Amino acid sequence: MAVTAVGRGRSEALPPVDRDHRWLDDDERAAWMSLLRIVSRLPPLLDSQLERSSGLNFFEYTILAMLSEEPDGTLRMSRLASVTNASPSKLSHAARQLEARGYLVREPDPDDGRCIRALLTGAGRDQVIQAAPGHVAAVRGLVLDALDPDQLRALREANELILMRVDPEGATDPEGTR
Amino acid sequence: MAVTAVGRGRSEALPPVDRDHRWLDDDERAAWMSLLRIVSRLPPLLDSQLERSSGLNFFEYTILAMLSEEPDGTLRMSRLASVTNASPSKLSHAARQLEARGYLVREPDPDDGRCIRALLTGAGRDQVIQAAPGHVAAVRGLVLDALDPDQLRALREANELILMRVDPEGATDPEGTR
Repeated sequence: MAVTAVGRGRSEALPPVDRDHRWLDDDERAAWMSLLRIVSRLPPLLDSQLERSSGLNFFEYTILAMLSEEPDGTLRMSRLASVTNASPSKLSHAARQLEARGYLVREPDPDDGRCIRALLTGAGRDQVIQAAPGHVAAVRGLVLDALDPDQLRALREANELILMRVDPEGATDPEGTR
Repeated sequence: MAVTAVGRGRSEALPPVDRDHRWLDDDERAAWMSLLRIVSRLPPLLDSQLERSSGLNFFEYTILAMLSEEPDGTLRMSRLASVTNASPSKLSHAARQLEARGYLVREPDPDDGRCIRALLTGAGRDQVIQAAPGHVAAVRGLVLDALDPDQLRALREANELILMRVDPEGATDPEGTR
């Protein structure tokens, strides 16, 4: 019985469970621990591979990659925050850094001047093109190649059920049409 | 075809695939996106629930919880970094903050004075006891209750296969006996 959700249940340090606060059983704890370890350990590896190869962290890479996938290389900042899973303030900070390095510019949206959009520059596009192969290889090597197609499908199914609670707006919009 | 691993494959912005750099197919992309969304969106929710209820972020809570599970409320810093999935420098920074708030002390390990250990204080233990029920409820509400036992088992299996690549030392030591 893992009384603190992260503990290993060795002691009786915490008060006994009540009906409203059931602790975790062994299977629940093991699943939760596996998810926590992924959440903690994977992002630093993605960061370090990208930083070594291209001087970008994973979030910066994601911003440039998402822009590069648009036919005109641009997205409104609000939309860019959504597709990069970031808060507006986190995106703002990173966009400022990327702008200073010449990889994107921010400007009023010609279709609605009240909105700001980010526009990939030529240098930004070159940077994504240079970084993408190594990043994709890391994603394969760390994650995708570990699983067979059934396991990959099961992982996606479980994650999407969790995301209906963790990110309900995004979960109803798998195609990113927001 | 998602040419940048995170993109939605709308354009032909990137060079064609070669044999060494296969891009992601639709199933791979969807699974990878689901994992990235979990990794990005879950930690802020755990942080904000704990910060509202107890003024701790999730990492700080984890440190105190792991110490509270030890019979004597203490772990060496090296071991504590491992069980909290943190780098030594990240742990050091957080431990300093927790020490300043009176929740733990750091001291030479009596068994080996070259090692530093962290020791939970009474105030630290009270803080975990107060925070744990709400945190466990959040873990259930956001993650565990979303899945039936088969789905939970499948998630754990997939995560553990990934962790053999992402965190191979930890993966061979599920009981935390390092």
